[in-house]
Amino acid sequence: MTRVTVELAAASYDILIEPGAFRRSDQHLARFARADRLLAVTDEGVAAHWLAPLREQLAGAGIALDAFVVPQGEQAKSWDWLERLTGWLLDRGAERGGHVLALGGGVVGDLTGFAAGIVKRGCGFVQLPTTLLAQVDSSVGGKTAINTPAGKNLVGLFHQPAFVLIDPEVLATLPARQLRAGWAEVVKYGLIDDPAFFTWCEANRAAFFAGEPAVRAEAIERSVRAKARIVAADERETTGVRALLNLGHTFGHALEAETGFSERLLHGEAVAAGMALAFRYSARRGECDAAEAERAATLLAASGLPTTLVQAGVDANGAALTAHMRHDKKMTGGALPFLLARGIGRAWLAHDVALDDVSAFLDRERRRG
Amino acid sequence: MTRVTVELAAASYDILIEPGAFRRSDQHLARFARADRLLAVTDEGVAAHWLAPLREQLAGAGIALDAFVVPQGEQAKSWDWLERLTGWLLDRGAERGGHVLALGGGVVGDLTGFAAGIVKRGCGFVQLPTTLLAQVDSSVGGKTAINTPAGKNLVGLFHQPAFVLIDPEVLATLPARQLRAGWAEVVKYGLIDDPAFFTWCEANRAAFFAGEPAVRAEAIERSVRAKARIVAADERETTGVRALLNLGHTFGHALEAETGFSERLLHGEAVAAGMALAFRYSARRGECDAAEAERAATLLAASGLPTTLVQAGVDANGAALTAHMRHDKKMTGGALPFLLARGIGRAWLAHDVALDDVSAFLDRERRRG
Repeated sequence: MTRVTVELAAASYDILIEPGAFRRSDQHLARFARADRLLAVTDEGVAAHWLAPLREQLAGAGIALDAFVVPQGEQAKSWDWLERLTGWLLDRGAERGGHVLALGGGVVGDLTGFAAGIVKRGCGFVQLPTTLLAQVDSSVGGKTAINTPAGKNLVGLFHQPAFVLIDPEVLATLPARQLRAGWAEVVKYGLIDDPAFFTWCEANRAAFFAGEPAVRAEAIERSVRAKARIVAADERETTGVRALLNLGHTFGHALEAETGFSERLLHGEAVAAGMALAFRYSARRGECDAAEAERAATLLAASGLPTTLVQAGVDANGAALTAHMRHDKKMTGGALPFLLARGIGRAWLAHDVALDDVSAFLDRERRRG
Repeated sequence: MTRVTVELAAASYDILIEPGAFRRSDQHLARFARADRLLAVTDEGVAAHWLAPLREQLAGAGIALDAFVVPQGEQAKSWDWLERLTGWLLDRGAERGGHVLALGGGVVGDLTGFAAGIVKRGCGFVQLPTTLLAQVDSSVGGKTAINTPAGKNLVGLFHQPAFVLIDPEVLATLPARQLRAGWAEVVKYGLIDDPAFFTWCEANRAAFFAGEPAVRAEAIERSVRAKARIVAADERETTGVRALLNLGHTFGHALEAETGFSERLLHGEAVAAGMALAFRYSARRGECDAAEAERAATLLAASGLPTTLVQAGVDANGAALTAHMRHDKKMTGGALPFLLARGIGRAWLAHDVALDDVSAFLDRERRRG
């Protein structure tokens, strides 16, 4: 069992990483019940695995679990589901001092956190992430959102959870592709500012995918510590520190937009390809050793993740891809801060990147296949 | 010209009260323009009075004013208008560091503040209140919301404006009934904790309604100072201090619910009747001198505001009225904190009020007519 605290000015909160925690949910969640009742949001896939056992454990503690089930996938991050969910929470008597459980992956966490944040001008919520990506990234840090016709995650809130409960054992039932996609975000923490962790990822990749419990727990814990540290330094993405978490995300976002934010390219897969591109672009600018960029891409490729445009299934040219970047919500006064790298564990935020130059780079990448 | 600062932990902001400020909007608003452009939200009624002159003044400073116009009244505080407005802001390139102008009464301010608060996880906004109620109450303090089938203001955010610009002269075109409704909130500040201000209201009521500029400016300034002080002490309504602002609102909310939150009974009118009821109920509990309760009601009645159920146009019995109170968003663990008074300027938050007792009191009020 490991406890990581996210230290924030307004309200710090704990992330508990405990193998088997979901088999003892009553011990961890009873304190959030009101009138012997808990409200939870989940999706159809997670509900099939986890709703019955959690309900049974909580019933043993005299707590009724009332659940709102959304469809699987990004479609639930919509105005329509936000309105339905807030209506349900109000009907069920959600109160300001109360907490709603978000049981699922990033979609459920983003939607639930947003709904909780606006019901009665702010209820609490608890994250119970069931995917690797949600465990190591989206459940920590308080970013919540829905998607709109203008783009992904363009409407939402910074609303921190009151508690995050991570059970590494739930990954046993996660599809292999989802596991690989989450691993991209694990590797990201090494690439950002922790070369020793990157080396650890290289050494432990096989054991992680083989399901070695201690390795999985350590990968999650080190990732969560990294994220907690960065979020604590810059909760609302105002100083540039938190921007480091976006390594690979600007290229990745363009790839996701080009593939329609669909199952064709998962977010983690887009981030993997995006990080490989960011390193190669940094090398092209002469700011990163080409061998370092190659080493970053090699680990991602060995993990079964895409590292080129072709592997990401994208045939668009540079102009089309950079057009997506121009709508980034971090775009300020016409300029887009861009995450680059001076080497493994040496990411930095550049403010002098010309999108035309990025476009030319992507055209070369496209030609090289 | 008077400047009042709302001192908050995260970000303080100024409220500027200046007669004629709306005739010099460019001087006050130019600093919020981006790329020589400002985005504003207003309603059809306010647009007819103010959009052309503000646009002209700003054009003189080389700034284009782009406006989104919502229908008048509570109907604009809906999911539908929230979605349309956020879509418009995104289409117009609203950015995190930018500011949206809310030009109008409480409805425009509540909707705009909410939309700004969730676009890109938080843009800034500026309040340009055009009703007395918005000037002395809703534009200050950061409460934003929409209405849902479950009730009024049940979905929203605490999102503070970056600046509030109040021009007392805009009241010249405000309908008399709206002016009276706003005056109820002015009197409220005296009733809460400032008996000297209540006495001032008694002495200056006639001059205020006659349009005496100095009296209007002073009424607004003293109200804004009171609100700023209380909000600074308890930004998110967690310590009980901010709850004082709800004097008359629990009874008033029940009256508004009973009249369908419609033109039949304006919010300020409901608050006036609610305050009179809260004082009489306090007297009935033996905690307030009956003469003090009478004095409070007398000023409100002299101002043309309702102070009884009959005057409020409500014929419901106590059971029906307290049923509305049970859905209050301040309801916690089944109990409803209730604002009572020990006298003029001596409001306090009671936690021992039984809704059955309130119901019996309201039945007596109904019989007395």
